[in-house]
Amino acid sequence: MTVTYDDNASAPAGPSDSLFVRACRGERTSRPPVWFMRQAGRSLPEYRRLREGVPMLESCTRPDMVTEITLQPVRRYGVDAAIFYSDIVVPLRAVGVDVDVKPGIGPVLGSPIRTRADLDQLRPLEPGDVSFVDESVRALVGELGATPLIGFAGAPFTLASYLVEGGPSKNHEVTKALMHSDPELWHELLSRVAGISAMFLDVQVRAGASAVQLFDSWAGALSAADYAKFVHPHSAEVLDSVIDVPRIHFGVGTSEFLPLMASAGADVVGVDWRLPLDEAALRVPGKPLQGNLDPALLGADWPVIEREVHRIVAEGRRAPAHVFNLGHGVLPTTNPDVLARVVETVQAAESGSGAAR
Amino acid sequence: MTVTYDDNASAPAGPSDSLFVRACRGERTSRPPVWFMRQAGRSLPEYRRLREGVPMLESCTRPDMVTEITLQPVRRYGVDAAIFYSDIVVPLRAVGVDVDVKPGIGPVLGSPIRTRADLDQLRPLEPGDVSFVDESVRALVGELGATPLIGFAGAPFTLASYLVEGGPSKNHEVTKALMHSDPELWHELLSRVAGISAMFLDVQVRAGASAVQLFDSWAGALSAADYAKFVHPHSAEVLDSVIDVPRIHFGVGTSEFLPLMASAGADVVGVDWRLPLDEAALRVPGKPLQGNLDPALLGADWPVIEREVHRIVAEGRRAPAHVFNLGHGVLPTTNPDVLARVVETVQAAESGSGAAR
Repeated sequence: MTVTYDDNASAPAGPSDSLFVRACRGERTSRPPVWFMRQAGRSLPEYRRLREGVPMLESCTRPDMVTEITLQPVRRYGVDAAIFYSDIVVPLRAVGVDVDVKPGIGPVLGSPIRTRADLDQLRPLEPGDVSFVDESVRALVGELGATPLIGFAGAPFTLASYLVEGGPSKNHEVTKALMHSDPELWHELLSRVAGISAMFLDVQVRAGASAVQLFDSWAGALSAADYAKFVHPHSAEVLDSVIDVPRIHFGVGTSEFLPLMASAGADVVGVDWRLPLDEAALRVPGKPLQGNLDPALLGADWPVIEREVHRIVAEGRRAPAHVFNLGHGVLPTTNPDVLARVVETVQAAESGSGAAR
Repeated sequence: MTVTYDDNASAPAGPSDSLFVRACRGERTSRPPVWFMRQAGRSLPEYRRLREGVPMLESCTRPDMVTEITLQPVRRYGVDAAIFYSDIVVPLRAVGVDVDVKPGIGPVLGSPIRTRADLDQLRPLEPGDVSFVDESVRALVGELGATPLIGFAGAPFTLASYLVEGGPSKNHEVTKALMHSDPELWHELLSRVAGISAMFLDVQVRAGASAVQLFDSWAGALSAADYAKFVHPHSAEVLDSVIDVPRIHFGVGTSEFLPLMASAGADVVGVDWRLPLDEAALRVPGKPLQGNLDPALLGADWPVIEREVHRIVAEGRRAPAHVFNLGHGVLPTTNPDVLARVVETVQAAESGSGAAR
């Protein structure tokens, strides 16, 4: 067998040599690896069938379901990475928070956490609290072979907003009032939540995840100044605790403080659809980028989507490396056949003599 | 009587000489004028009493209610401008669109507008369709004396999103798919909606409104490129049609394309709470700014709010002129006493020997 140094020439030996992990490490790959946030989920008929009659959080604690659901989009699309099927509130429930995920609403708490006494109820996460995660990841790593598995956790601000508001919130007014009126309690809360997120990622990495992504769905509700003061140190605490695997940091509507997202221990910066990747590359120079097709556009005619995919692949070349993704999660109404064509298009992009898959 | 040129020395002769209108024209005033988006509305107990048993859109068509509701916050707070009480879908209903505003949901259509045949149903607005607006504005101008009245309309993109989605939408996926897949139909739709918004403002200005504000609640869901191509020309069409009075252009989450918001015929650029006014002043040099206290912070302790008010007044000095406001509408849960203190604080700011009120 002839050994060459062309990344197209030999099949990867394992997930740590995969196109996805190499791009996350900043290596310019022959074409962008591709996966989708929420690729495992409601847009897939096989997912909806499996979930029938099983509540969301229960499905996240059953290794058989977690494994199957995580694998479904890998089988269907041949994406370059799997994302661990879970929910951001799983580690909160695992430490005893009375939280459930209500269909059509989201996470709802029995009672919100707003005082020091409430906070004292929030104990640290122990690996034994989420042994089902360890078991699921180990099973998945065995099944996935050379395809990398991405571990995942919710970022401290997003988790804290659910805890403080008691559920999804449009304006985060109780959270923001607490943050500004009692910064000491706020930082104590975020520090505890950061510890829980860090341990949740640690369990996944120790069990074999090849990378992690920290999701901050709600950070875009904040000004850059508030993010810097009240959130950044805690997200950095989570990402700094992760060793040996690449760390992706993703927020929605956070283009105004992308450098802060990058400096919070991120190896890869996730970008939503609002900011073109070439512009993002100027804001966080030297960082690999992930993104950023508008998920709402997947309902447009195919030529529109194809044009957008090509635009994003071209703009992504301005970063040291690019992981193709959507700019937010797959919408439940998305046609899986369209996602399949997006994967094909990205995987055909710029490939020379046979892409490394 | 001694005539001086100090803006503090003589009482204004009428709304066109008011602190608010002068600031909108770019004149540096002795202190920022102050009003609040949604100052007339659910946060006021006197509003909730008046609205008991009266559906939203009915309240907007009864001149007695419109007048009283518009005046309530002027009486209570002594704000420097009144905002006309209406709803962005009022002109749509006036041309026959089957739309209602459902409590806790927002505007809901009987059937969405997605095809050319649907579009043909959308006729132009005639002044006679909204004679109740003309009547209400005339009554208000009489009651308000020297206090200016701000006319208002929804911007074409926000109105079109309601029309196309059939109601409020988190992701605007049908709207975005239509925009990209059938740009010709999209531009025809936005052009018709722009004509309706323009006429709605024209009726208010002819009846005596001293300024107008165009609200684009949902524009922040778009990338700058999509805003420029699919929305900007139509918002500009609306604002360019307004003559003789200052035009405020406000969007939420639009900091990435603030110069486009400014260049769409705006005399004043409204800024949400995410972007500091000193930074906004660099992005749209020469433009008066409006904003930008985070409405979610009004639940914090008073010292926090007071510090934020002072910060914003100081940052606003970097613009040619500054109209103090929130960064979005007053939340229904806001304590009116807090808004009263905000008005007091702004009106005491930087005033020399007696502010012009």
